Amino acid sequence: MPFAVSVLTLFPDAFPGVLGVSILERARRAGIWSLETLDIRDFSHHKHRSVDDTPFGGGAGMVLRPDVAAAAVSGTPRGERPLIYPSPRGKPLTQARVREIASGPGVILFCGRFEGLDQRAIEACGMEEVSLGDFVLAGGEVAAQALIEACVRLLPGVAGNEASLEEESFETGLLEYPHYTRPRVWEGREVPEVLTSGDHGKVAEWRRAESEKITRERRPDLLERTDIKEPKRPETGDERD
Amino acid sequence: MPFAVSVLTLFPDAFPGVLGVSILERARRAGIWSLETLDIRDFSHHKHRSVDDTPFGGGAGMVLRPDVAAAAVSGTPRGERPLIYPSPRGKPLTQARVREIASGPGVILFCGRFEGLDQRAIEACGMEEVSLGDFVLAGGEVAAQALIEACVRLLPGVAGNEASLEEESFETGLLEYPHYTRPRVWEGREVPEVLTSGDHGKVAEWRRAESEKITRERRPDLLERTDIKEPKRPETGDERD
Repeated sequence: MPFAVSVLTLFPDAFPGVLGVSILERARRAGIWSLETLDIRDFSHHKHRSVDDTPFGGGAGMVLRPDVAAAAVSGTPRGERPLIYPSPRGKPLTQARVREIASGPGVILFCGRFEGLDQRAIEACGMEEVSLGDFVLAGGEVAAQALIEACVRLLPGVAGNEASLEEESFETGLLEYPHYTRPRVWEGREVPEVLTSGDHGKVAEWRRAESEKITRERRPDLLERTDIKEPKRPETGDERD
Repeated sequence: MPFAVSVLTLFPDAFPGVLGVSILERARRAGIWSLETLDIRDFSHHKHRSVDDTPFGGGAGMVLRPDVAAAAVSGTPRGERPLIYPSPRGKPLTQARVREIASGPGVILFCGRFEGLDQRAIEACGMEEVSLGDFVLAGGEVAAQALIEACVRLLPGVAGNEASLEEESFETGLLEYPHYTRPRVWEGREVPEVLTSGDHGKVAEWRRAESEKITRERRPDLLERTDIKEPKRPETGDERD
């Protein structure tokens, strides 16, 4: 069974977008994951297929109606898939949550637009509110695509080289070390000597030290969550170990 | 002059993607912003237009060459625009940074793929490494689109109703209050009474209390950064006040 992604959106033309290129497109064609895009407007029984109305209590903008949203959700067989509503009010997305979702049967994403979605629909449908970060988007579509891309690249057979997934940022609790490739000397800048020494132990040691250094400089908050002397994987249940 | 966005990518087909719908598409057609997409591969002088090579020091994956990356950057007139490299190793994007970028002449985004970009190119080109959040994507394209969308929606004339921008999440230092629209009673769930009272003072008070409550529950870290008794805008320099 492919990893089944369903997206509920008012802008189906925004899909596949970035999901239609590179390794994600290849993986979709290979049947590793599937993408279903549903137009929320198709679930409206109102005049002119209307989906929104003015907010109670006044204020700017329009709000997505609960009846239309719930009809769209009900029209999408859910199974064991989480139903995610991208929103700046949600819990910040983490690589640990991405891994959990990627290890399941798939995901449903409900993309909001306008001022937001009626709170009763969020509650009645049991939507999980997830935030990409502390900034505001015009709609949930690009956040949905980021979440889908983050999940799909972890599926077996997608990234091509699964070893590389284990060393990247957040998987060790640290930011990743810097990368270097040819030319060895470029515009007077040399590759760090240790990387051309052929000493694998020293290379590993240097990379570890660089990871710690950059994490300390840029994201000391991550160090508080990990023991940098005995690094542990941030979550259990990695089916690819 | 439109807000000038240039994107350097190995997958120009990923654009405009989500940027080609709704208010962003309308604003682009209206000349409020412009989108230029450049193929990094066009700047390669190597055999088969190659752009990547194996990492020094060994390890999985391929690394984007510094000479190709720098040639692509040099081929894009920069002016006063920031040059951003989306990366999980970067500084987390905030609404304050989005506002800063949106108040400038535009932005250049360099989208990485593979294992990453040679560190010397990041340094030599003065790239600003920006992270959407603590998760890993397959490439910088979707992060670039999120950043562009966040900026463009703030440009005058794009959102249609600029008042609504001032009450949303992060602009007051708090998450936004819940929204409600018709029907007033939906599947036994009523809209909170205060919102239909017509008492604007009470509505404002209720919304403020809800914002504080949801922020306390979900994001106590935001409260540490603000004085919830005398809310201040998180940054100065809002040219739309």
